[in-house]
Amino acid sequence: MNIPSKYIEESVDQLSSLPGIGKRTALRLVLNLLNRSEEEIERFANAFISMKKNVKKCSCCGNVSDLEMCTICLNPRRNKSQICIVEDIRDILAIEATESYLGVYHVLGGIISPMDGVGPSDLNILPLIERLKTESINEIIFALSATMEGDTTNYYLYKKIVPFSIEVTSLSRGVSVGSELQYADELTLSRSLLHRQPFQVI
Amino acid sequence: MNIPSKYIEESVDQLSSLPGIGKRTALRLVLNLLNRSEEEIERFANAFISMKKNVKKCSCCGNVSDLEMCTICLNPRRNKSQICIVEDIRDILAIEATESYLGVYHVLGGIISPMDGVGPSDLNILPLIERLKTESINEIIFALSATMEGDTTNYYLYKKIVPFSIEVTSLSRGVSVGSELQYADELTLSRSLLHRQPFQVI
Repeated sequence: MNIPSKYIEESVDQLSSLPGIGKRTALRLVLNLLNRSEEEIERFANAFISMKKNVKKCSCCGNVSDLEMCTICLNPRRNKSQICIVEDIRDILAIEATESYLGVYHVLGGIISPMDGVGPSDLNILPLIERLKTESINEIIFALSATMEGDTTNYYLYKKIVPFSIEVTSLSRGVSVGSELQYADELTLSRSLLHRQPFQVI
Repeated sequence: MNIPSKYIEESVDQLSSLPGIGKRTALRLVLNLLNRSEEEIERFANAFISMKKNVKKCSCCGNVSDLEMCTICLNPRRNKSQICIVEDIRDILAIEATESYLGVYHVLGGIISPMDGVGPSDLNILPLIERLKTESINEIIFALSATMEGDTTNYYLYKKIVPFSIEVTSLSRGVSVGSELQYADELTLSRSLLHRQPFQVI
């Protein structure tokens, strides 16, 4: 694309640096921005600058927060002895939306992925070990992605947690609720069969 | 979504104000930005502010430009008596990419669309009439979208141009090059049949 303005080109470059946004989409978005007033553009741009300046990481679990600690860690009604390990804040939002978990979280900020150059030292793992040493924890719940990287990370963490003799569980994997059996992939179906559970009348 | 930071929420709101970006996508993009350095965020944000401050509209055709007039209008080798009417700059980029047009453009900045509240007075039409009065124009080429709104706008412009007795043409419509006939929609196919052309050996 031969954009006739270096300023538009720079904006397109910046927007297309975001994951999943190509040059064409970026140009469409930039032209939409260009039609807005100067105040609107400043509000748009300043949102990101003030976010970067003000958003902190919770000193306990690594969740994003406007305060030193996040609202979940500060909540006295949450069960502090149960820690759910997640990859990032979006997983917390998903689990919180179920309204069926009352423990606290620990945000890794990613998963071990040698292909992307992410090793254990890039993740929020040392503070987790510190929590295990200083707090009284009963259960660790692994809630990472059901991928090879997620499994690798689970295994790495498990090795670190074993010495503390804490119960370690992971989210159950199986056929999705509401989905038809014939469309489940083979691996999911075979795991689902292997980990079959006693029938419960709900 | 119950985002635990009002700064992140504001950034998500700003990004999801762009067309085609939902709240979930915006959150994914915002978390990507949050992992960047403060300098990178400032470069990201300032790109939009300096774009808004510096990008001008070409005083002749309405194309975006860093100067008072765009590079196409300033180019002495372009045929100034042939004007191609387009909706926005992306259409210019598409036509320029064909390298088969040597005239100049006129950018409307949209098309007449009562559903979206866009009327003729919101478009760059008066300056076009002014060009017809003052410049010596031989041909106007309609290159708007092949939609009902595009056709409405073509008709409106045609009525305005008729008094000047200038040749008015529009892009040919028909079956796309390289596409199979059976997949063409009925309207395109019937138009294509109606406007059939003398066979040419290329």
